Amino acid sequence: MSLLVVGSVALDSVETPFGSVTDALGGSAVFFSSAASLLHPVQMVGVVGDDFPVDRLERLGKRGVDLRGVERQAGESFRWKGKYSYDLQNRDTLETRLGVFAAFQPRLPAPYRDARYLFLGNIDPQLQLGVLDQMHGSEFVACDTMNYWISSKRDVLLELLRRVDVLLVNDSEARELSGDWNIYRAARWIIKAGPRMVVIKQGVYGAVLVDDDRIFYVPAYPLEQVFDPTGAGDAFAGGFMGHLARSDDVTPANLRRAMVYGATMGAFAVERFSVQRFDEIGPAEVTARARQFSDLVHFDFEPERVAG
Amino acid sequence: MSLLVVGSVALDSVETPFGSVTDALGGSAVFFSSAASLLHPVQMVGVVGDDFPVDRLERLGKRGVDLRGVERQAGESFRWKGKYSYDLQNRDTLETRLGVFAAFQPRLPAPYRDARYLFLGNIDPQLQLGVLDQMHGSEFVACDTMNYWISSKRDVLLELLRRVDVLLVNDSEARELSGDWNIYRAARWIIKAGPRMVVIKQGVYGAVLVDDDRIFYVPAYPLEQVFDPTGAGDAFAGGFMGHLARSDDVTPANLRRAMVYGATMGAFAVERFSVQRFDEIGPAEVTARARQFSDLVHFDFEPERVAG
Repeated sequence: MSLLVVGSVALDSVETPFGSVTDALGGSAVFFSSAASLLHPVQMVGVVGDDFPVDRLERLGKRGVDLRGVERQAGESFRWKGKYSYDLQNRDTLETRLGVFAAFQPRLPAPYRDARYLFLGNIDPQLQLGVLDQMHGSEFVACDTMNYWISSKRDVLLELLRRVDVLLVNDSEARELSGDWNIYRAARWIIKAGPRMVVIKQGVYGAVLVDDDRIFYVPAYPLEQVFDPTGAGDAFAGGFMGHLARSDDVTPANLRRAMVYGATMGAFAVERFSVQRFDEIGPAEVTARARQFSDLVHFDFEPERVAG
Repeated sequence: MSLLVVGSVALDSVETPFGSVTDALGGSAVFFSSAASLLHPVQMVGVVGDDFPVDRLERLGKRGVDLRGVERQAGESFRWKGKYSYDLQNRDTLETRLGVFAAFQPRLPAPYRDARYLFLGNIDPQLQLGVLDQMHGSEFVACDTMNYWISSKRDVLLELLRRVDVLLVNDSEARELSGDWNIYRAARWIIKAGPRMVVIKQGVYGAVLVDDDRIFYVPAYPLEQVFDPTGAGDAFAGGFMGHLARSDDVTPANLRRAMVYGATMGAFAVERFSVQRFDEIGPAEVTARARQFSDLVHFDFEPERVAG
């Protein structure tokens, strides 16, 4: 079933203890699409400047990402520059140049408006609402946000929350939005504000899905080498929504599988700079890693007889 | 099968955002025994001063903790005073008065020396080695340590590690011991140093069991109210070792169950000050909470048919 993402398309310059990269492909829509397209075709809406190396997007096009929704406008592309701490747990933004992204007004090509699965990447909640207004009613809408919008556009964000099925945020965002440090109470607060469920991402510790009456926890895939955490959250969203769209199934059991695909994609994202890892792998690698999560968390209370 | 713990018996004064308590029962041997005794009888070795309110230990005695190994010496009991941050994620030690604990020399009553399961709580690694020397060979030895010993008695600690089956530490201890920030690489380093396996506790995020070729992750039980984190790690060890001792089974499948009992006990520990929660519950509550972990992490990749 059709899957649409609206978000940023950026050129990231990132410095980690393990190296650095300049003007690499980035942005929420790009990380989301790179991950999701390993599971299901994606329609992408975003904006780039006339300086954007469009050939970099072509690889996405070849992998099943419909780029008709990516506008090219006169001006500079969105650029972000950041530097991570030695343990990759903190980062400083060194520079943000919004360029054409500052005046981004998502315009959905007509065929996109019937998408059954929609991910609203982290942009101004007013624009996220504008996207919803262009849709012909989606089966399942997920959205992301960030602390900047939580503090500066709280009312609009709360209006948006009443119209989405799931909010995917990290723990600090959930805390700031709800005003509660405990992530489970924060999740209850968010559910009362509108969404049927909440996914709270906790970086190297995994992610939790909370709905009205159940909680599901998926750990992060155990990696001995993490290279660059940029985009892990959007890649998680791509795995989550990509699996839901390809199965067209939002039952509780399948939402749990979607969480596992989210964690799988988050782990691939951090193994290289930018979206490089997604160019190296195919569906077989995704399936293999997802299935390893079973052994990672499996236990049973039935006594087992051990031979010998 | 017999289960022995050697560790501290203390009087804790703790301040959290939710209240405070003065001279409450604490120490690694006490938290361990309070949790473990809900699963299996425990033999306890420790020392208290002549000011210790021994009636406080009697409740443990009634619950199946053999207190013959707790010496009473002339002098002050070990006292610790700490204050937690608003989010309970950090704490400041306000005062430590070692008292009789400063000269603690664990002496094992003869019947204890045959214990098949042994937990060496966080004390000087030289004393931990001294305990091992008094034992008649145990089936399974677990030990804890802390950053203070890692930096001040590294060589002795490394000697100890060659003689234990599992090291249970928190993530910061694993990092300091191995010199590696990545906990999975840190675990490999520790396994090379001696133990067959490592349990790395990550507080509100859960705990991970790493052995030569597999990794098992158990999340923390989702609590909406955390009251006082003191002793959670020792309660975890109590659940872990208590389950192993009662089942007398250290196969991989049972070690995973033991991790779940560890997480279960850790969650009970933080719901009240001191060991108070363990006085309120019985085996039925423990089993019920442990079983909830199945739903918390369960997923499967088999497509499910959902009735209309």
